[in-house]
Amino acid sequence: MGQYPDANRRITDAAASTGSRLDSYVDRYATRTHGMTASEVRSLFSVASRPEVVSLAGGMPNISGLPMDVVGSLISNLIGKRGMTALQYGSGQGDPTLREQICEVMKPTGINGHPDDVTVTVGSQQALDLITRIFIDPGDVILAEAPSYVGALSTFRSYQADVVHMEMDDDGLIPERVLDAIATTKAAGRRIKFLYTIPNYHNPAGVTLTAERRARILRICQDHDILIVEDDPYGLLGFDGHVPRAMRADDAERVVYLGSFSKTFAPGFRVGWALAPHAVREKLVLAAESSVLCPPAFSQLAVSEYLAAHDWRGQVKSFQELYLERRDAMLDALSGLMPEGARWTRPNGGFYVWLTLPPGLDTKAMLPRAVTSRVAYVPGTAFYADGFGSRSMRLSYCYPTPERIREGVRRLAQVIEQEMELRAAFGAEGTSRRPGLDAPGPDQS
Amino acid sequence: MGQYPDANRRITDAAASTGSRLDSYVDRYATRTHGMTASEVRSLFSVASRPEVVSLAGGMPNISGLPMDVVGSLISNLIGKRGMTALQYGSGQGDPTLREQICEVMKPTGINGHPDDVTVTVGSQQALDLITRIFIDPGDVILAEAPSYVGALSTFRSYQADVVHMEMDDDGLIPERVLDAIATTKAAGRRIKFLYTIPNYHNPAGVTLTAERRARILRICQDHDILIVEDDPYGLLGFDGHVPRAMRADDAERVVYLGSFSKTFAPGFRVGWALAPHAVREKLVLAAESSVLCPPAFSQLAVSEYLAAHDWRGQVKSFQELYLERRDAMLDALSGLMPEGARWTRPNGGFYVWLTLPPGLDTKAMLPRAVTSRVAYVPGTAFYADGFGSRSMRLSYCYPTPERIREGVRRLAQVIEQEMELRAAFGAEGTSRRPGLDAPGPDQS
Repeated sequence: MGQYPDANRRITDAAASTGSRLDSYVDRYATRTHGMTASEVRSLFSVASRPEVVSLAGGMPNISGLPMDVVGSLISNLIGKRGMTALQYGSGQGDPTLREQICEVMKPTGINGHPDDVTVTVGSQQALDLITRIFIDPGDVILAEAPSYVGALSTFRSYQADVVHMEMDDDGLIPERVLDAIATTKAAGRRIKFLYTIPNYHNPAGVTLTAERRARILRICQDHDILIVEDDPYGLLGFDGHVPRAMRADDAERVVYLGSFSKTFAPGFRVGWALAPHAVREKLVLAAESSVLCPPAFSQLAVSEYLAAHDWRGQVKSFQELYLERRDAMLDALSGLMPEGARWTRPNGGFYVWLTLPPGLDTKAMLPRAVTSRVAYVPGTAFYADGFGSRSMRLSYCYPTPERIREGVRRLAQVIEQEMELRAAFGAEGTSRRPGLDAPGPDQS
Repeated sequence: MGQYPDANRRITDAAASTGSRLDSYVDRYATRTHGMTASEVRSLFSVASRPEVVSLAGGMPNISGLPMDVVGSLISNLIGKRGMTALQYGSGQGDPTLREQICEVMKPTGINGHPDDVTVTVGSQQALDLITRIFIDPGDVILAEAPSYVGALSTFRSYQADVVHMEMDDDGLIPERVLDAIATTKAAGRRIKFLYTIPNYHNPAGVTLTAERRARILRICQDHDILIVEDDPYGLLGFDGHVPRAMRADDAERVVYLGSFSKTFAPGFRVGWALAPHAVREKLVLAAESSVLCPPAFSQLAVSEYLAAHDWRGQVKSFQELYLERRDAMLDALSGLMPEGARWTRPNGGFYVWLTLPPGLDTKAMLPRAVTSRVAYVPGTAFYADGFGSRSMRLSYCYPTPERIREGVRRLAQVIEQEMELRAAFGAEGTSRRPGLDAPGPDQS
């Protein structure tokens, strides 16, 4: 940003604020557009990019470990060998060779997929968008974990879905809460279109669904005829090298499985995928075509070359080690520095720790003070469709160095301490506690 | 396609046809999904890829003229110089440097845009999708030329818009027909959300809107407070080197301008853009983020490097020459071979000729016979939302060699001749003429 002179823009903004440049289209947008608002993560991006701030906010993978020379040479070979294909339009469903390779990549999850059931998407975010597009009429219900991925909630909202949250604990989504949500929703005469879950190394909660619960939740969805959307960007990034078995591995017709190369290779290509029952896959491809015609051929062939020519499994292993070191740095720092009453999750993979502060604190209200103290996080409310999460925050350990992570947690602990002192001195009114909106976080059971 | 063994798939398809693999989700899709059907272009892709068929159907740009060595080396430099940015997530609005360069690329159209008003999209198809998403509620009306771009119609349909077509002639969209369409729509109490136009080297009609009509249509839309979506993928590809002035150049608040690098560089990166009034741009970015998070950083930086390091204007000039030679081959062949009563447009740029056959012929019904005779085209009905266009077809001259174009038109002429003989021998019933559905094509005035 800011690489061009913005003097004119400032003048225009000033004009806008004096009313001469109102949004003349404001009464013309679609109903869905009124629900599109800038996420709480967005405003953090500009803050987090300042070098003096330790950002524990972003979810950017740490690609510093990628062998740039290898990537550079395979991409330059690609132009030489397959330039006419890489630079041309491709099929809406995605490159056939890449779809075969994706089936190989899914094998460790127990999934035995067919390339014809794979749709390549512009990141798995587009897969989420397309699944929502083909299933959701305004007012339809989506069941989702509490908390859930902020990008999914934003997509669900843009299609005017109503999200019903279900509680998690350290073992992931609680099957009884799934049954409760189904019963409540059905009793209200509402229509559940699908259950959205991130079973592995949850974003933002950091927890993983146990094998026993996977089986129970799958059974519940079979009994109640509910489609499952299983979002799994982190499944290969477990710290013990174990890859949890996907729900899709046990029911090919009930589950749409979403995957991504953004965390196991690089997000800059925007290559993700959906593995869907055949009929759903057909709709997905039609929706993808009307959305972008086809995913970028160049990106797909670059990923395909990388998978074919490089030891990508070895690279994933080195990512696991890199993130493990950072997770340990964060957990150690939290153990040493967080006040009495604070609780946090202990992820076995992925990027995130979910931290819940003692009663009375509000992470969103506290954020400006944290940024002043040069540390950033994402307030918990961003991960709820219903205003919960005010006592919680998401901390990412994926990107900064271990030293920076320790420094970030140290700054955060000071901010929390000041906040608690303020509260002790002036009572609950001194902070912006909103009673009843504390998060039923995954560590509260 | 077909790069993996499809024996299992065939068995599964057989099972599906006997009813053992019905779509168990059929009663669960969103209302919009029922309108998503495979386009007439799609079924042609597999046919057109067979080498013995001369495809005059596809709209693939002819990238054989691109200097692959240059592209290969600039991309490999890119990884060395800016790999950490190119492989990472970027901003939802797109790379700031590329947005500056896009403003330079638009200069020949008379547009003096600001980079902050540009949103980079996954091809201009995504720009169409996002514009439709933020403006269209089910049942809203979009005004569009008759015929119009098949990909736009598919997107409009997926948002349940109603398209009202407006007649064109050799000078493009007819202003009086715009007034008629506005009057009729308003009289019916319907809401017009925007007018969609491809003013330059129209896809599929091949015609260009005159400067005088641009001014009149802009004035009409100002008078009736209608937003214009000006889709301009071909504007730089005029055969006389002249770039028509964009409507956006004369009204920055009334027009959303869409551009693309797919035809001036390469479609494999999927980089397009929308230049929109500031408030609309804000909505576009939010919609883009919920759709794909961000456009591929790698693609954007590759295009940016290409624009900075290569003589892209010289490349566009060589594309113009390449397409001019092919257009001439097609027009010559049509002049020599088409029967009495056939009419076609004479494009001054772009990729397409719109051919209308003598009364009584049906291009969709004729297509299987054409393919048997090893020539393919797109039937005219694909370019109408309302069933018109049955006597017309789109012929593309962009991709085949001039020799192949001549051979394709020769085969097509034979098919048409046989069709007319059949009709003469057996009467109108021998063909599948549907009275009243002939196209009010651009050459009928």
